[in-house]
Amino acid sequence: MSKQLTAAVIGLGSMGWGAAVSLVRAGITTHGVDIREDVLTQFSSEGGVSFTSVAEACETADVVFIFVVNGPQTEDVMFGAGNAVASAKPGTVFISCVTMEPSRATDLAARAEAAGMLAIDGPVSGGSAKAQSGELTIMAAGRAEAFDAAQPYLDAVAAKVYRLGDVAGKGSQMKMINQLLAGVHIAAAAEAMTLSAKIGLDLGVVHEVIQECAGNSWMFGNRGQHMVDGDYTPHSAVDIFVKDLGIVADEAEDHPVPLSHTALNLFKETSDAGMGREDDAAVAKLLASKSGIKLPGMV
Amino acid sequence: MSKQLTAAVIGLGSMGWGAAVSLVRAGITTHGVDIREDVLTQFSSEGGVSFTSVAEACETADVVFIFVVNGPQTEDVMFGAGNAVASAKPGTVFISCVTMEPSRATDLAARAEAAGMLAIDGPVSGGSAKAQSGELTIMAAGRAEAFDAAQPYLDAVAAKVYRLGDVAGKGSQMKMINQLLAGVHIAAAAEAMTLSAKIGLDLGVVHEVIQECAGNSWMFGNRGQHMVDGDYTPHSAVDIFVKDLGIVADEAEDHPVPLSHTALNLFKETSDAGMGREDDAAVAKLLASKSGIKLPGMV
Repeated sequence: MSKQLTAAVIGLGSMGWGAAVSLVRAGITTHGVDIREDVLTQFSSEGGVSFTSVAEACETADVVFIFVVNGPQTEDVMFGAGNAVASAKPGTVFISCVTMEPSRATDLAARAEAAGMLAIDGPVSGGSAKAQSGELTIMAAGRAEAFDAAQPYLDAVAAKVYRLGDVAGKGSQMKMINQLLAGVHIAAAAEAMTLSAKIGLDLGVVHEVIQECAGNSWMFGNRGQHMVDGDYTPHSAVDIFVKDLGIVADEAEDHPVPLSHTALNLFKETSDAGMGREDDAAVAKLLASKSGIKLPGMV
Repeated sequence: MSKQLTAAVIGLGSMGWGAAVSLVRAGITTHGVDIREDVLTQFSSEGGVSFTSVAEACETADVVFIFVVNGPQTEDVMFGAGNAVASAKPGTVFISCVTMEPSRATDLAARAEAAGMLAIDGPVSGGSAKAQSGELTIMAAGRAEAFDAAQPYLDAVAAKVYRLGDVAGKGSQMKMINQLLAGVHIAAAAEAMTLSAKIGLDLGVVHEVIQECAGNSWMFGNRGQHMVDGDYTPHSAVDIFVKDLGIVADEAEDHPVPLSHTALNLFKETSDAGMGREDDAAVAKLLASKSGIKLPGMV
């Protein structure tokens, strides 16, 4: 009889939740940690094992997935208040799925390895639906030993794992490039949709036609639908792109990234206008307000 | 025996050429007009009938496709030196496939109709490969009578014809929205690829991974490949986007389009640096130069 696999998932937001229930579905004992009691209750009812203490959740885990919001929170989980690395068994694989500065990802992995752990820098893409179905894309870097140990766990949560090198940081670099494009494309979709509304085109028709044309993007298809429907329920919030395009702007240093800066300013303005926790498609509402027009869902 | 169909195609650039050979392939007598002798010789060898005079090419045509560079050239073909409308039979369908200001498209169609012609405002998308295979997407507007008369000709050149209304101008509006997105996405791809090069990611791997992630766009897939290959053979030139994003900036008036402006400035700078006739992916070379890095194909 094979050994029972045990994972911990720190942070049960939309992506972490999806990964956690995918692990449960794969028959893996899954320890879930979140600060929200209702989420933990829900996770227990889905067959997970709920914890309020990061350290306790990590004690018996073979693999720890971290799905918190940003780099500082990840550091706190691993080495600060969470104390995950100190409480885990030697050789536990820490997989950071958080979007953070590549330099920080390199540093956190090195510190985990120095403490006897294995580490994978593994930011994800795919959105909450793909997380829920265990079909994430992971942009991953780390030593072969870490990938070998984590294989069945990665299989449970991901449709595709790109191995981008042996050194942590390469995964976060790729994710940063993805976020640059994703953020600019959301803002471009907002610009296109609001200009369409201004000149009297039907937004549903624009959304249909452009998807068959060279102007299409994954984000135009996905977030464009939110704009057509006037539905700003946060799948991914405006403030996420304030953070992620901020990372692009910082890490680019003197490399010119004028579109990233322009999009970052739009997300900041949208957040400053009180929409930071709405869906990132809300950048369209900011542009509509500036132009004096109404999109679906605007009162 | 059914009547032999006859079309004229004015302008045998990459898109016009593709449409013209698709018409020939469909068994339609096709009159091609271009100012380049070698292109006309080639067209004759493909089974087309070559003309140097627009007016003569249009005299016996049932449908006239216009594939010149911009609005002023279209006006010149129809009502100026080309004299196409005056020389055509009453009821000939003029299909403008040119990207131009929507207001101009409305005006030219109205003048053609006043002269006894039918008119379709029908800009295209799909690139030269789709043009060549007769699988263009056409964003079309015009009266039902015009579409009825042009049906077999549209079938020969297009996989999909979107009917966007009875009034010319709606097709050009949709094309303008497509060009806004396409232009911003090309510039974003350039920003992403050059930043990738700067931080030491393999461009081929970036191109592969991002296409599976939420940062993907049609342009990232297509023009990104040009950047990976260092191949700036013009499929569509930098100067086309100087024109098309210029139309966006003008027609938007006081509607905010900050990303379009940022991308337009990059295309202008690229053109000013002597790359106006290179592939529009050359905007990546501009950013690389500013950053002091070399992309494939840069000496």
